[in-house]
Order: sequence, then structure tokens, then C-alpha cells
Amino acid sequence: MTTIKVNGEVNIQPNLAEFEFKEVLSSDPSRKAVFLLLNNKTTGKAAILVADKNPFVEDGSVINEWIKDAKLRNLAQNDIYGSYELLMPEKFNAVKSSLIYPATDKHILKYRRREVYMIYETADDYKSITKPSIKESLFNLDWVYNFLDHKAETDRIVFDDPDPNIGFMLAPDLKWNGVDVDNLYLQAIVVRRDIMSVRELTGEHIPLLENVRKQVRRVVKEKYGLNPNQIKMYFHYQPSYPHLHIHVINIKYEAPGAGMTCIFLDEAIDNLKIWPDFYQRATLPFVGKEGDVLLNKFREAKRLNEE
Amino acid sequence: MTTIKVNGEVNIQPNLAEFEFKEVLSSDPSRKAVFLLLNNKTTGKAAILVADKNPFVEDGSVINEWIKDAKLRNLAQNDIYGSYELLMPEKFNAVKSSLIYPATDKHILKYRRREVYMIYETADDYKSITKPSIKESLFNLDWVYNFLDHKAETDRIVFDDPDPNIGFMLAPDLKWNGVDVDNLYLQAIVVRRDIMSVRELTGEHIPLLENVRKQVRRVVKEKYGLNPNQIKMYFHYQPSYPHLHIHVINIKYEAPGAGMTCIFLDEAIDNLKIWPDFYQRATLPFVGKEGDVLLNKFREAKRLNEE
Repeated sequence: MTTIKVNGEVNIQPNLAEFEFKEVLSSDPSRKAVFLLLNNKTTGKAAILVADKNPFVEDGSVINEWIKDAKLRNLAQNDIYGSYELLMPEKFNAVKSSLIYPATDKHILKYRRREVYMIYETADDYKSITKPSIKESLFNLDWVYNFLDHKAETDRIVFDDPDPNIGFMLAPDLKWNGVDVDNLYLQAIVVRRDIMSVRELTGEHIPLLENVRKQVRRVVKEKYGLNPNQIKMYFHYQPSYPHLHIHVINIKYEAPGAGMTCIFLDEAIDNLKIWPDFYQRATLPFVGKEGDVLLNKFREAKRLNEE
Repeated sequence: MTTIKVNGEVNIQPNLAEFEFKEVLSSDPSRKAVFLLLNNKTTGKAAILVADKNPFVEDGSVINEWIKDAKLRNLAQNDIYGSYELLMPEKFNAVKSSLIYPATDKHILKYRRREVYMIYETADDYKSITKPSIKESLFNLDWVYNFLDHKAETDRIVFDDPDPNIGFMLAPDLKWNGVDVDNLYLQAIVVRRDIMSVRELTGEHIPLLENVRKQVRRVVKEKYGLNPNQIKMYFHYQPSYPHLHIHVINIKYEAPGAGMTCIFLDEAIDNLKIWPDFYQRATLPFVGKEGDVLLNKFREAKRLNEE
């Protein structure tokens, strides 16, 4: 290892050859990413290597350069259709990666694959399992309230309607750089503090939801040039924090975690118009992760369909 | 180009260096895939190159081999966390690819990115736009009927319940190799021929849906070792063919086209139990693609939210 100084601290520049493979902690074959547990051969200490292949650079001169030197190995040929294994020169195959070294057991736990399960939450499950569990967790929503009160992150506000009943604030999601419209990702966070999730919506909330729909459509069109049918507006269930918010994303963009269950805003508005108590009665599916508090509560109640 | 013979036909083994870049027809940055339009520098004829990076091989000896020779370029370092650009030796960077050459305008149209749009189909839209459009299209379902009648693909049957009212046939989806349980993908195709999609389900169909749920859960557990909560069972809306079928996939697997809207079987059963006419009244969202017949019908009816 080479000793380097970062921010005045002595640090080490790792050499991967000093490590050996221990375990695949998790992987995402469709995204061509892998999370590896490694072991330093000298110190015996653990490291985690995250390796995530880069997308193709969509620039003609770059593409012409690798086309010139690429090697094709023919796998199958049928009329005008050929299948190949293509090898690009090394420099076009960069992999975005990060290394945590030395890694603690906590890091390892965080990166280890956790089994996921489908859970179908009935209205009764919500009352007896989910709602008490959220109340019990004493979720800290200070960051939401500080944001709504203009006490923090005021530079991130895209649009602000302060009405106490139908108001909301629109801001870029942390996953978005705020620039590339192709992967536009905003969140609309409602001003009201008494709605934990889509589960608690009733016919009474239609004006709030219609206001969000109308204003977001207008702002997204004016600011980013996207038509209403080029964006998706939806709730996650379960949400990641218990204060009503709506995801606004470019329909072209497949956000990571797309496996999560979504309820579209338009769908919710129409359900509430036809059946004002829809979300008090319907079964709402969601994906639970091994280790989650809520999943364990469903398991204790034997509502996990484990066999 | 080298002339080679395939199946007795004279064919050509392409050399990529003979082509030059013309256009990115479409791309999927999250999956690290790209569809390129190329031009043969000698013949002037068009070619389409599909390039899709391979997932990491999750085998310790393979990983140890590239770790040994990988180069890291430090991008940022903060305490135990480092970000790098990692270069693996060429042979570990294979890209699955296919080449269509010469490609016709039809091929090019097929691979060119088509804009997608959110459409919210109300019950009225279904009656006045969608249903007439499906009827008009005279969709050929012979392959479904041949399959259900044991006239074709009998070796693909995983399970068969021939009951005329609640029966169905279970078979691997064409996207699944039938072996890797990690990306298990089956389709349950109902025996009844009078249900075009989830839109036409009523309380009357609950026994059919419950039968599919019960038997599929049992068969998947027995044959593939997955618990009911480790699989997703859902309908696509709009479906790709107008004969009721249910997708059965490993919850871990993010199928391509995950952006499509899904209605879970369990959700549908519970909706029908509470509101037997739910799918005759509800608004169902779906994703339409530019060029689709149905999308054009919604556009003509000014139901596309284009501004």
C-alpha cells in the first residue's frame, strides 16, 4: 500500500492485489453490480468492494474509437442475425467502485443481501400491526418539519404552496442532480402533518391531492418542459418516512428499487372519488426486507405466508 | 469480412472495424446496454449493434483472478471510504452483443427509442376506446389455444388443471431458462377463453383466482423450493395478449420492463371480495408507447394529457 495524505490525515492508497476474495455479499445482475467481501492478505482485516459497471458513453467519437479495436467472437449466426461476445479495449471498461477498508461487522451487515418478501396488508393488519408499529418507532420527522418551516434546505425548494390544508412543497429527491431532465426525480411533501401515508387518505383529502396534481404538472411543464403524461406521480407503500409525500419522476427513468410497490396519484384520486373509504378497506401489497421491524411484527402475527 | 458457411448457406463474419457510428437508437444506462445504428464503410449498408455488458461472474476463483490484475484510480478518499475507477483486464469485460447486418428500415424502427406515456384508463375509456380497439385488432390467440389444447409446446407444461371454469396451465415464460430459481418466471394461463384482462374480472371469478393462487403456491414450493412470500403473482395492464394470464416471478428478480404497471393477484382477489364490480369502475393506469395503436386511439379521444 502507498501512504497518501488526505485532508492532512495520513491515509492509505489500496492495491487490490493485496486482497483476496471471501464472499459475494450481494449482487444486482441486471444492473451489472456486485458487492464483495475481501480480506487483506497481510493484515487479515476485512474490506468491502462495491463494483458497478459504467453505462456506455453515448458519444459518437468514443463509440467509433472502441468499434475500431473491438474483438468479436461469433456465438451463433442465422441469416442477417449474429450473436457475439464483444471485447472492448480495457480503457472503455471502467467500473465505478468504492472500497471500505478496514470494514467493520456493521458495514458487512449493511451490504449483505437481505431476503425480501411480498406482504399483503389488509385493513385489519394496518390497524393491529402497521399503525402501532409506526407509532412505537417514534420516527424523527424534524428534517421534514424544518424543511416545511423554511428552517433548512431552502435552496432546494422548487415550488412552495404554504396553504395549511392543500399546500405542499416540491424539491429534488436526493437521488437527482437537479439538472438531467431524463432522470428527473422530485418529491412533493404535503404541509399537513396528520397523514402518515396513502393508507390514511379519505374522500376528504381529494382537494389536497388534486391541488398537488395540478400544480406539479404546471411547474414541471414550465421548469423542465415535460408534459403531464411524461411523468409518473405516485406514493410508495410502505413509505420510507411517515409523512405524506408523492414521488414525481420522469417516466423514462427506472429508479433503483423499482421493485417497490407504487400507488399512482391519479389512481388514488379516482379510487377516493368512487369509494371515499377505499384506503381504509383495501388490501395494500408491499415488499418487506429481512431485518425490518415491521416485517418481524408481521411474522409474529403469522401474516407472512411463510409456507 | 470473412466468408463463412452457416447451415450450408454462405454467410459473412463481420469485422466491426468496417463499420462507423451513425446514431444511438436507444439505450438503457441502468442496465448498461446500448442499441447503435452503424454504417458499413465499404457497402454503405446499415447495421444495428446491440451491446449489453455482462453481469459480474460470482465465482471466487474468477474474482480472485481479476482482483490480482485490476488497476484502481483514486477519485476521492474520506477516512475508510474510497471511491475509484477500476479497470479490469480485457478478458473479464465481455459484452453480450448481436449484430443485424444488413439492417432494414423496419429493424431500425423497431430498435429506435419510442417515447412512453402514462395513461389513466377510466371505466368509460375502457368501454369506448380500449375494448373496441382490442376487438378491432383481431388478435390471433391460436398459440394460446394450441397450448391449452395440448397441441403445441406440451414439453413446457409445468402444471395443468384442465377444469373449464377454474383451470389454468402453468409454463415457463420465454424469458426464463427454466433452471435458475433466482430469476424464476412462469405464466399461468387460464383455461376460460372469455376473459380478456383483469379489467373484465368480477366477483364471479374469485374461485378461479383463488384456485390459481393456491395451486401455483403449492407447485412453486414443491418444484422450486420458494415460499409464497418469495414470489410475486400479478397481472400486467395492458396485457401483451388479450387472454387472462398471471405472471409468477421470483421477488428478487427485476424483470426488464419493470416500469409496466402491475396488479397483484392477492390485491385483485381482495378488491373483488370487497367490491365485486371493482374492475368495472376503477381507473387503471398503464404505460403507452408512441406508435401503439391503442395510444393513438387515446390521443384521438384527447385522453392523453398531452398538455
